[in-house]
Amino acid sequence: MINEEGTIFMARTLYFISGSPFAWRAMLALGLKGLEYRAVELHGSKGDTQTPEYLALNPRGKVPVLVDGGVTIYESLAIVAYLEHTYPETPLFGTTPPEAARIWQRVMEAEGYLGVALAGAARPIFNQAFVGKEDEINQHFADAAQEIAAVTGWLDGNDFMAGDKPSAVEAMLYPSLAMIARVGPSIKVPGINPNIPDYATDFPLLAAWMKRVEALPGFDAAYPPHWRAAA
Amino acid sequence: MINEEGTIFMARTLYFISGSPFAWRAMLALGLKGLEYRAVELHGSKGDTQTPEYLALNPRGKVPVLVDGGVTIYESLAIVAYLEHTYPETPLFGTTPPEAARIWQRVMEAEGYLGVALAGAARPIFNQAFVGKEDEINQHFADAAQEIAAVTGWLDGNDFMAGDKPSAVEAMLYPSLAMIARVGPSIKVPGINPNIPDYATDFPLLAAWMKRVEALPGFDAAYPPHWRAAA
Repeated sequence: MINEEGTIFMARTLYFISGSPFAWRAMLALGLKGLEYRAVELHGSKGDTQTPEYLALNPRGKVPVLVDGGVTIYESLAIVAYLEHTYPETPLFGTTPPEAARIWQRVMEAEGYLGVALAGAARPIFNQAFVGKEDEINQHFADAAQEIAAVTGWLDGNDFMAGDKPSAVEAMLYPSLAMIARVGPSIKVPGINPNIPDYATDFPLLAAWMKRVEALPGFDAAYPPHWRAAA
Repeated sequence: MINEEGTIFMARTLYFISGSPFAWRAMLALGLKGLEYRAVELHGSKGDTQTPEYLALNPRGKVPVLVDGGVTIYESLAIVAYLEHTYPETPLFGTTPPEAARIWQRVMEAEGYLGVALAGAARPIFNQAFVGKEDEINQHFADAAQEIAAVTGWLDGNDFMAGDKPSAVEAMLYPSLAMIARVGPSIKVPGINPNIPDYATDFPLLAAWMKRVEALPGFDAAYPPHWRAAA
């Protein structure tokens, strides 16, 4: 599309915050599908997600938001499922019923167990409201470690989490696993023991999978800019 | 399918616990799609979900599980999405991109806000571990009430939550809303105020929507047997 000034711009825009695993999922899915998009970086600390313009896109004031032509959509898995519906080429949810079942089950299992454990651990720490909740937070971290072992088992000799091709499981799971590995060891809170596994040592199959995901199309474009700057 | 004794049986089985909103979602989706199924009732109190046979279907020991021919799948939304993939007739996630976007966003928003609030309130009460958590639980109930108002707004003059036809939003949302309305008022715990809205009085549009859902195909077959027995 070319606007009045002759500038080329894309009609597909993804709003993200650097390092948000939720936005990252949508960006990975766009990349896996080979869809071009303009990535607009927002800064939570500058209030970018609370402007009237942004709240008109997502009243929840969160990332990601995808604007795709005339469609505006938020919630990371909703975006990934919408992309699958609208751009079925390069399927991310399989083609046969057994594939669809396996991928959907693993996506929801990752959300419902690893995701819940991580949210339960991270929220009180992030909100600085952890005093008196140390046992509960440690239990969430222990649950997360157990779920990391479980998802590693999904590889089961395959290159990817639901078979020999990348799927929505990669898009949904990689950012959370990368985030824990990066942030976990830096958590220094009295009484809290994140006890994050070291993937390379504890789960070499998972570490090898992460390398494979990092080589996929669109991975670099989706990588959190401030992580790259810090590297 | 006819077995050796000449008995007709179906190759599609849904395992449920009466009143589980998660199992109910899958049953509503099967009903909306007009798919026949055998519903097998399990009793948590009898350990039915912890037998080796059941754990072979779902190692998490939870309902629902759908066995559909050669495919076994658990996690309620995964089942609904699998059904959409495998039986696209009578679509539950729309046909056009804007419909798919609206339905997926609302499904995930209901999960991520109303669902999280209800789980946060219900889990400690159910586990009898609520002492010292009263404020947190009351906040979850307050969040739930606010989300009930939000989902009522989705009706926006339409008969159903994402337009003029029933969709996955109905299957995913109705059981949770019915459950709160039934269980909420019976919660008598010191310091906890569930403050569940009375739909008929506070949200008449929502109450009317519930009546419409109750008239949909397959609703009666999915209704929790012990609720019916108690009525």
